[in-house]
Amino acid sequence: MESNGNSTLSHRTMEYLRRGWSSIADVARVHITGSVREDLPEQDRQRLARQIDGCLQGIGGDVSQRARAADVGRTYLALNEVGRRHFLELLARDYGVREDELALAMDRWRAMFPDGDPNRRREAEADLRKILRSPRIQLLSQFNALPDGVKFLVDMRAELMPLAREDPGLKFLEQDLKQMLASWFDVGFLELKSITWDAPASLLEKLAQYEAVHAVRHWSDIKNRLAADRRCYAFFHHQMPNEPIIYVWVALVKGVADNVQALLDTKRSQVQEPSEADTAIFYSISNAQVGLKGISFGNFLIKRVVNALAKDFKNLKTFATLSPIPGFCAWLQQQLAEDGAGLLLKSETKTLQSVLDEPIEQAFPKMCQDQAQWYRRTGKEDAMRGPLMRLCARYLCEAKRGPAAADPVAHFHLSNGASIKGINWLADTSPKGFRQSAGMMINYLYKSSNIEKNHEDYSSEGKIRKSGAIKSLLKQ
Amino acid sequence: MESNGNSTLSHRTMEYLRRGWSSIADVARVHITGSVREDLPEQDRQRLARQIDGCLQGIGGDVSQRARAADVGRTYLALNEVGRRHFLELLARDYGVREDELALAMDRWRAMFPDGDPNRRREAEADLRKILRSPRIQLLSQFNALPDGVKFLVDMRAELMPLAREDPGLKFLEQDLKQMLASWFDVGFLELKSITWDAPASLLEKLAQYEAVHAVRHWSDIKNRLAADRRCYAFFHHQMPNEPIIYVWVALVKGVADNVQALLDTKRSQVQEPSEADTAIFYSISNAQVGLKGISFGNFLIKRVVNALAKDFKNLKTFATLSPIPGFCAWLQQQLAEDGAGLLLKSETKTLQSVLDEPIEQAFPKMCQDQAQWYRRTGKEDAMRGPLMRLCARYLCEAKRGPAAADPVAHFHLSNGASIKGINWLADTSPKGFRQSAGMMINYLYKSSNIEKNHEDYSSEGKIRKSGAIKSLLKQ
Amino acid sequence: MESNGNSTLSHRTMEYLRRGWSSIADVARVHITGSVREDLPEQDRQRLARQIDGCLQGIGGDVSQRARAADVGRTYLALNEVGRRHFLELLARDYGVREDELALAMDRWRAMFPDGDPNRRREAEADLRKILRSPRIQLLSQFNALPDGVKFLVDMRAELMPLAREDPGLKFLEQDLKQMLASWFDVGFLELKSITWDAPASLLEKLAQYEAVHAVRHWSDIKNRLAADRRCYAFFHHQMPNEPIIYVWVALVKGVADNVQALLDTKRSQVQEPSEADTAIFYSISNAQVGLKGISFGNFLIKRVVNALAKDFKNLKTFATLSPIPGFCAWLQQQLAEDGAGLLLKSETKTLQSVLDEPIEQAFPKMCQDQAQWYRRTGKEDAMRGPLMRLCARYLCEAKRGPAAADPVAHFHLSNGASIKGINWLADTSPKGFRQSAGMMINYLYKSSNIEKNHEDYSSEGKIRKSGAIKSLLKQ
Amino acid sequence: MESNGNSTLSHRTMEYLRRGWSSIADVARVHITGSVREDLPEQDRQRLARQIDGCLQGIGGDVSQRARAADVGRTYLALNEVGRRHFLELLARDYGVREDELALAMDRWRAMFPDGDPNRRREAEADLRKILRSPRIQLLSQFNALPDGVKFLVDMRAELMPLAREDPGLKFLEQDLKQMLASWFDVGFLELKSITWDAPASLLEKLAQYEAVHAVRHWSDIKNRLAADRRCYAFFHHQMPNEPIIYVWVALVKGVADNVQALLDTKRSQVQEPSEADTAIFYSISNAQVGLKGISFGNFLIKRVVNALAKDFKNLKTFATLSPIPGFCAWLQQQLAEDGAGLLLKSETKTLQSVLDEPIEQAFPKMCQDQAQWYRRTGKEDAMRGPLMRLCARYLCEAKRGPAAADPVAHFHLSNGASIKGINWLADTSPKGFRQSAGMMINYLYKSSNIEKNHEDYSSEGKIRKSGAIKSLLKQ
Repeated sequence: MESNGNSTLSHRTMEYLRRGWSSIADVARVHITGSVREDLPEQDRQRLARQIDGCLQGIGGDVSQRARAADVGRTYLALNEVGRRHFLELLARDYGVREDELALAMDRWRAMFPDGDPNRRREAEADLRKILRSPRIQLLSQFNALPDGVKFLVDMRAELMPLAREDPGLKFLEQDLKQMLASWFDVGFLELKSITWDAPASLLEKLAQYEAVHAVRHWSDIKNRLAADRRCYAFFHHQMPNEPIIYVWVALVKGVADNVQALLDTKRSQVQEPSEADTAIFYSISNAQVGLKGISFGNFLIKRVVNALAKDFKNLKTFATLSPIPGFCAWLQQQLAEDGAGLLLKSETKTLQSVLDEPIEQAFPKMCQDQAQWYRRTGKEDAMRGPLMRLCARYLCEAKRGPAAADPVAHFHLSNGASIKGINWLADTSPKGFRQSAGMMINYLYKSSNIEKNHEDYSSEGKIRKSGAIKSLLKQ
Repeated sequence: MESNGNSTLSHRTMEYLRRGWSSIADVARVHITGSVREDLPEQDRQRLARQIDGCLQGIGGDVSQRARAADVGRTYLALNEVGRRHFLELLARDYGVREDELALAMDRWRAMFPDGDPNRRREAEADLRKILRSPRIQLLSQFNALPDGVKFLVDMRAELMPLAREDPGLKFLEQDLKQMLASWFDVGFLELKSITWDAPASLLEKLAQYEAVHAVRHWSDIKNRLAADRRCYAFFHHQMPNEPIIYVWVALVKGVADNVQALLDTKRSQVQEPSEADTAIFYSISNAQVGLKGISFGNFLIKRVVNALAKDFKNLKTFATLSPIPGFCAWLQQQLAEDGAGLLLKSETKTLQSVLDEPIEQAFPKMCQDQAQWYRRTGKEDAMRGPLMRLCARYLCEAKRGPAAADPVAHFHLSNGASIKGINWLADTSPKGFRQSAGMMINYLYKSSNIEKNHEDYSSEGKIRKSGAIKSLLKQ
Repeated sequence: MESNGNSTLSHRTMEYLRRGWSSIADVARVHITGSVREDLPEQDRQRLARQIDGCLQGIGGDVSQRARAADVGRTYLALNEVGRRHFLELLARDYGVREDELALAMDRWRAMFPDGDPNRRREAEADLRKILRSPRIQLLSQFNALPDGVKFLVDMRAELMPLAREDPGLKFLEQDLKQMLASWFDVGFLELKSITWDAPASLLEKLAQYEAVHAVRHWSDIKNRLAADRRCYAFFHHQMPNEPIIYVWVALVKGVADNVQALLDTKRSQVQEPSEADTAIFYSISNAQVGLKGISFGNFLIKRVVNALAKDFKNLKTFATLSPIPGFCAWLQQQLAEDGAGLLLKSETKTLQSVLDEPIEQAFPKMCQDQAQWYRRTGKEDAMRGPLMRLCARYLCEAKRGPAAADPVAHFHLSNGASIKGINWLADTSPKGFRQSAGMMINYLYKSSNIEKNHEDYSSEGKIRKSGAIKSLLKQ
Repeated sequence: MESNGNSTLSHRTMEYLRRGWSSIADVARVHITGSVREDLPEQDRQRLARQIDGCLQGIGGDVSQRARAADVGRTYLALNEVGRRHFLELLARDYGVREDELALAMDRWRAMFPDGDPNRRREAEADLRKILRSPRIQLLSQFNALPDGVKFLVDMRAELMPLAREDPGLKFLEQDLKQMLASWFDVGFLELKSITWDAPASLLEKLAQYEAVHAVRHWSDIKNRLAADRRCYAFFHHQMPNEPIIYVWVALVKGVADNVQALLDTKRSQVQEPSEADTAIFYSISNAQVGLKGISFGNFLIKRVVNALAKDFKNLKTFATLSPIPGFCAWLQQQLAEDGAGLLLKSETKTLQSVLDEPIEQAFPKMCQDQAQWYRRTGKEDAMRGPLMRLCARYLCEAKRGPAAADPVAHFHLSNGASIKGINWLADTSPKGFRQSAGMMINYLYKSSNIEKNHEDYSSEGKIRKSGAIKSLLKQ
């Protein structure tokens, strides 16, 4: 199932928006835009600036102001890539906070601090707050009322992000937008929904397109992920009712799952009776909106789903993930470069010598190749298993980026208060599985009674809670 | 139909909230509150402060933080009036912006203005913005996720408003809350809905309770206001789905309505066929949420309703109000005190002398009495009519508060771009109608093609657009 | 709250129907009716008959046929009372089963019975079935597709019922209609819904209008009946989504309720927490559709509500009614006429003599008067209580109409498998309560484990299951 | 996209039903079935018969009776193929109309016809009607209240149909069931819905499975059929909300479509703006429920869709089909066998001789082959075109089965009042398209103003309305 991403507005959507917005402008009987060139050359930028100024000054009253904002949005949608960049640059350059006003307001506050009238000082504080709300945000926030206007702004940020990496001016526009979106998409405003095979086809199509962990191949693949012993939960926002924000796939199984291909097998012989499952496995979590990057929902999603499942299925005793280890192979390469065979314990060296016909500096990297076939050779696989699992435990628990775990997935779950339950050997035999982690996967455990303490220990001291099995691996 | 107001949480609602919120805290397994005394004495305030601090520091992670916020809310709900005031004072005093941090951040920005690195200066600007988001707002904003949490905050502001009038400290808390609510209740996030006799009884009950202009007397009164030739429209917010924000009652009639009792008559003989009406009369608009006072929706509501009606009924040619003149009688008294009989034209003096047996300083005030009966005496009524309508036109068009029309209803509609169409004699013969305006009412006209210009003329120059009839009255 | 009944179509509904149906005819481009006189004189009846014939012959195909049926319905709606009667007589007289065809079909079947080819005999049987479906039912059944067409037919039967009592010809039309409605309103097609204060006002208004047992006085009365410790359940049919078919009011209480005024008191001090109730009291059940009279739903409703409540509230242990005894006073009068003081036990005679200043032939009937005040006089009340409760028990258990209990409410519940739990003294002190049963009411008990046996015992042998308390009363 | 048909209940559905029904029986506390053998041998059949008898006699009251019916249904679901056949035979043999009762009732009626009391005769008529409702239908009708009970009965008929073809006993059971379903699925009770890409995936999956005309290959195929310029409409029944009854696919195009592959092309470059289309093409109509075979909906569906489209899109001027000609090739073969080259006109013979290297008895059949490639050779195609289109016109208009057109699709549309608009050459180049009709397709035209007359002319006299183009072809 091909993904066409979501970082750009499709032509179809744009058409829709353009028409929708045009009708809004019609209703308010405001038609300020003459046609502008698609690449928005300088003179057109000046005309646009006059429009924006009119809008910000509120000529004609609140209602007209919003109609003008719609018209500005419509102009943006009609531009090509070059024109859009020009438009964004215009916003970034000319519609930030008015710094001279800010400086004056600071002076007023400063004159009353710490000894002036506290009430008048607080008035000055309110002025500061007002001035710090940039004109461009005043403009963009008014797009909320347009049909799909919130989605438009999310997508505008998605378009802005790659540009902002190179242009610091755009970066601050992008940060302004992020802050506004973060307040709109506060997790308290999101709604958790369970998605089933009875959901709209258009929504399931999006889940397939946005899936970031285990690619959806075809519709029978989705159908299998929504079978009676599977669940999908997503957060939605009332202003984007047909767009998932973030979603997680769950399998209800007996015993903790140790292989993701088995979970995703569309030909699996048996659908589990949910009321007989004892374990919920979170095997994939994907952000659906590029334009909301950096605004975190994942921890809320997992915990709310744990609660929802625990309520519906009293029989569930264990809540755990089956997660990839995206950074293991890269880390291993680096360790090999630094320490070579020194990575191995003596006993391991001995065992491996008897089955390998090359040094581990050559043998190990092969395990991280797309087409890794070694695992089909019993002797070799047996010999590799011990050292690799031990090294993996070391990577997870000891490799750090500052105080945090180096592995991003590990960091995410540990921050959420999960613990490391176990490493699964040959758990993801897809090319991606080998490339990332020589086929291994991890179960992170979510146990309600420990979540707070785990989170605190990890956040404050970098301490990682782990199972006895992991401790044994580390002790060798 | 008795109104029990909405400025305080009813006992019933509170019960519900308390239970709802308690279960949220349960789910997150956070129980930080021991029981506190209902009046929240000093030592309990200290315990509460520690809770709040814990919540703001985010101990245990985001999810736990929200559970702690729920717990704080629960504590608030369990307090009596004295305790709540103590709670609010605590927030007002100790959880405002940290001014020393603010001063330092200003220094950093100042050091780079105007000549420092603009990018680093913008980072400092972002810091300022962050510091200016007060801890108390960080706390309160997290109530959004609780069941009815948004309604809770709206009601908290309603409770705070009378207290804030006397205590400047509380006033700034109230203003913080207002700003947060204003961004949540941005008109772009509101949904316009048409309300019919098929709406939930619980909702219609609220419309009756919140009605501010023409009191609802009983259910057949509501039913009549929702008959086939009547309409009611309201704005709703997705987080308060069962609470109207603001609503307007409309009558679809032939010709502009000139008497409100006729509109509200539950025994009226005939229901108009809507498809034969040529005029929509907006005869009442009420804000339903005391806690949203000062956040304006009315102009949006009227214009969106005009659009909705114009789309559904092509036959509607005129959109006008039938509005009260709340300030006329008070103004008249004042004019009488100042000018006495000098208020009258010569011709008027003559006519009145023949029918009045007392001077107008005594006669006019009687027309503004609850039980005014003069209008039943034909001769008298005839004689009064001319002078009073002329004085009313003068009041509307010439009495000012600064550049604005002195009458608040006139100011509202004129700001929205309406014009004054006509004065209706004996249009509201209720006690309230006489007390406010000697029984007169006004039609304000909403004509799409003039709205922008009217608004601009009025806003910038205080110019009031009026009909020929009004102009004639003024010219006498 | 005035009831305007539902046995006739209100003018409003008719307007709506007429318009709706007209548009159907438009769409199908069929306009066969010229205008007919409202009282449908003979020549117009002939024209109408031609229309009906055209419709039954299916000229122009199925779709046109239905359009023609709509047109016939429209004609009916446009008639006045006289015309409608003429219309119904036309249907009754000329559109029954074609008896000559029936006779021929019987001959064909007869010729093969018992010895002919069984398969050809079954074909003849199918022919019989077809012929027995009368043309008038073929016509009327096609009204199902019209907007509110099913409700129209229900109301047509309601109009027909009083006429049919006098005219045997109309009676068979009415029976035909009843049979058709009975198959459409089969209980398997009905949906049980719980009705709350959030239900549409228009629906609650209907509940008030149709209430047959304890009249609804005003909206606060309804609101009280829908408070947190009250429930209302109704059956609905998909083709009449806004019309209840039958509904029952339930109170969730502690201990079996013994007074209906207490249940209905809109000023009662305390709303019971439903989760603390142990008993569900069914205190009123009303049929909402006159036109469905004789099609039974009540037993299904009660049992499905028992199941629904038992599922939602594990704490409920007892399901019982608080029911009127509509026939007691009439029976008592008759007994007094027959036996006079012989009705009393010796001990009773003695006690009564000491407090009564008149013979019971005069004293007892006063207890059955609207304005009965005797119960306020303690001595008298005490003395009356014993004999009246005993006689009431006798009435319920021993007064028979054939094998069935004479009291219709008793018969209804006993047929459903309930038992008689107890008699409540001064349980309904309304005028109606005294008129029917000297203020007494009954609790019938629904106990799942006994329902089948109770039903069988009562249905087959007329045996009535009763509590120990009732048995004691009978034994005296 | 593989179709797994719908003529048998899938294992999954059965599981669901069994559980659902079991819980119904639980609720009513009725457990009458001991376990029976899956193949239902004679002794188990006797036990089942006793259950059925108990149910029909109504032991324990109405509610219990329905619980017993549920139990019988559960037994049926637990049987294997052999057992089900035994079950159906039991119903067919022992639960038909009681013929001795019928004979007696006839005697009573006969005795009063034609000269007896007409009212008593009508009572006897009602008795006849009652007796003619067979016990088996009384039993089966009670399944309506079970979860998915109506779908169960539809599927039971689907299972019964192939068996009934061989066993006359079962045939009458099947006919009974058909009659009951026909009254439940009366078109007046069906709801027309528009289906879009936002419909539940589970529903779209069913559309793909049930598609009878142009097989759905994959999901992008469905998505294309639901693009902005495509429509799908289906009838639904309230008791089977997730099951389409019959559905039609429509394309909104400019000009009458002449090629179905173009319509179905998932890679087509352009989606038509619906508001610019002038023609609606019905290119496929499929019955979704095998068990409703013989109950006609198609004509209603097409006409209601024509109305719905005409209302939404004023721009649509033409409503036509693009239909297959399933019988043409078979008819052509037969004609060749009878007349050989005599089928051709002189001019045709001449032209064909110059391009064909074989006699038409050999050449023509090749055009009706799966892999027909001749159409890619220009000369040949040109030469063939004239004769084949002429013969096709002859087939459509002159080949008859009795008074009806021999082609079933032609008969369906002509009965509905459509006319033959034109023949399209190379309009369906799929293997099936060649096999059926040498690649030709027909447009049938639905023109509101002619539908009634066309229907009447065709139904009464077999007269076919056709366009000038068709007439020209026939005149040659």
